[in-house]
Amino acid sequence: MDLDHLKKPAFLIDRAKVRRNVERMAEKAGRSGVSLRPHVKTHQSAGVAAWLRDYDVRAITVSSVDMAAYFQRSGWSDILISVPVNIHQIPDIDELAAAASLDVIVESPAAARALVGGIRQPLDVWIEVDTGYHRTGVPVGETDTILDVAKALGASRYLRLRGLLCHDGQTYAASGPAEVLEIAEGSFRALSSAVAELETAGLQGLSLSVGDTPSCSLLDSFSRPVSEIRPGNFVFYDLTQAGVGACREEEIAAVVACPVIAKYPARGEIVIYGGGVHISKESLTPPEGGPCFGRITRLRGAEGFWPAPLEDAYVSSLSQEQGIVKAPEALCDSVEIGETIAVYPVHACLTANLHPAYCVPGEGWLPKFRL
Amino acid sequence: MDLDHLKKPAFLIDRAKVRRNVERMAEKAGRSGVSLRPHVKTHQSAGVAAWLRDYDVRAITVSSVDMAAYFQRSGWSDILISVPVNIHQIPDIDELAAAASLDVIVESPAAARALVGGIRQPLDVWIEVDTGYHRTGVPVGETDTILDVAKALGASRYLRLRGLLCHDGQTYAASGPAEVLEIAEGSFRALSSAVAELETAGLQGLSLSVGDTPSCSLLDSFSRPVSEIRPGNFVFYDLTQAGVGACREEEIAAVVACPVIAKYPARGEIVIYGGGVHISKESLTPPEGGPCFGRITRLRGAEGFWPAPLEDAYVSSLSQEQGIVKAPEALCDSVEIGETIAVYPVHACLTANLHPAYCVPGEGWLPKFRL
Repeated sequence: MDLDHLKKPAFLIDRAKVRRNVERMAEKAGRSGVSLRPHVKTHQSAGVAAWLRDYDVRAITVSSVDMAAYFQRSGWSDILISVPVNIHQIPDIDELAAAASLDVIVESPAAARALVGGIRQPLDVWIEVDTGYHRTGVPVGETDTILDVAKALGASRYLRLRGLLCHDGQTYAASGPAEVLEIAEGSFRALSSAVAELETAGLQGLSLSVGDTPSCSLLDSFSRPVSEIRPGNFVFYDLTQAGVGACREEEIAAVVACPVIAKYPARGEIVIYGGGVHISKESLTPPEGGPCFGRITRLRGAEGFWPAPLEDAYVSSLSQEQGIVKAPEALCDSVEIGETIAVYPVHACLTANLHPAYCVPGEGWLPKFRL
Repeated sequence: MDLDHLKKPAFLIDRAKVRRNVERMAEKAGRSGVSLRPHVKTHQSAGVAAWLRDYDVRAITVSSVDMAAYFQRSGWSDILISVPVNIHQIPDIDELAAAASLDVIVESPAAARALVGGIRQPLDVWIEVDTGYHRTGVPVGETDTILDVAKALGASRYLRLRGLLCHDGQTYAASGPAEVLEIAEGSFRALSSAVAELETAGLQGLSLSVGDTPSCSLLDSFSRPVSEIRPGNFVFYDLTQAGVGACREEEIAAVVACPVIAKYPARGEIVIYGGGVHISKESLTPPEGGPCFGRITRLRGAEGFWPAPLEDAYVSSLSQEQGIVKAPEALCDSVEIGETIAVYPVHACLTANLHPAYCVPGEGWLPKFRL
């Protein structure tokens, strides 16, 4: 692909940055003696996932049954589906469990009973608990409910209870590293004491599966009973993670390259071919007010890398296929119609999801799963 | 598809509602003697577009060259690409212009000169003008710039200048019908006087191509020199359009059906399998505060239609594959895990874009274009 004469928006990956991001997380997991089971929903790509194998990653996390099936077909044999089971997909889960070592999560006795009724293959099950994100999961203090779910699962010889699973997504909205660590440490204490209570009640040998990208990036180590961590976004990182302090801007490994199609010096704006269907409507609120759908950098002559985001330039508005970039005078004056600029994503997972494939400049295109 | 036992989120279309929405717009265009050239980016589907033919629609608007090629392959032969030309796609535009009657838009002398240099097939060109949306287009008062673009286009015998094109997207943010009409009428006055000035300067026979969904829904008629209207969203409508007063809630012809996977009566929330990758992160701000990513209704036993949105229930948060629904006590108590609920979209175009196909309950699936 000729980045200087771009026909349409393209999701670019800096392979070297991805490798450094993965290497650091894998080393950290290794030092703590926990497994790294990355959440591949971030990229949904067998091509990107293949790079993980170089760092001894053998197990992955996905966010749907179809995505699990895609990665199973791509050669992955240890897969956790980390969204509470939709009871109508139990036949599909059962079928997939015959082809791979599959883990699922439940968080209600009703869903557990549905699994018992429908699963006839060995299946590992985690009980999701909620330590503060308040999306899904049994509230961590409700030991009785956890025991009810465990008891329901115990009615099937095909189901093996692995332990408690938690996602502290509230770290994405933290004010900075100190708050992320406070959340992570509070969550660990609550989970550990839940495990202790469950042991007292007779449930032995439970593991913990934890791990959002901010916590996993900022913690130095992980302690028992944590057996695995499941960060996903760290492979690419993005402006949200940089804002929380989970990464530095120069570690962001993915951008969306977009051609400039118009410029308006009087308005201090340029317009790119690249809209909500390429970048996603996820936004940050910069200090000065209106939404920011991405920060930008220029790609002139770039091959496989891109400069840091420009100061005072950001995507301020997104239509379906076009974006408006607030541009300081110097940029407005010098940018040319047809030039390629790149957008640093606010939330790389949602941006990546929109693209049919990814470009690794100088190497080629990586295929991916699509809904 | 069994809506009562839903495996994964599905974009549902009520065909009868679509037909009524299209019929009303086609009749209005017919009474005014203007062409209806609907913007099919809303659905991107040859299946939905085929229904338009029953109302004498013969020309369409699209938002990318690839989308134009898809509809050309689907049998459409009169296509306007209504995003300013990306100069690097001129060879593709030239190729497509050999297969269909193609219209494009430009708004700078630089882009016009690039077209002159690259087009060797007959191509209709509109000059985009900006009457207040401030996305793309020559500011409507800058007659000299419009003349510069027209002059540049005149250097090619393949290019035919059709007139001025405008999109008043600012109507989407209007406070209600009165403000929409004020915008539309102000825009029409500004465009008419621009055409008059251009005629004085020697440019004769210019047409006007106008039309956002709010204006086209609320205006009673269109006057010369308007020759065509290009609303898109009206085919489905959505909560944004209902909020502006461009439609009634019962005219919204598309929802996303989602299975319930968890419920939390203590939090007053239920959780659906259906997230940012199915619904999109476009949001409204309801009077009471936090973002609303969609309103909801129950589908129990539904076939091909759905009830009005529930009061006091809405999608308050979206993860990649899950959504949190704020639910009043009665809903929380009565909804069951595995039940299907439906989400009325905030912005149907972006929601539709995320789906690989659409379900018409009781009939089947409609294919669509994808990036």
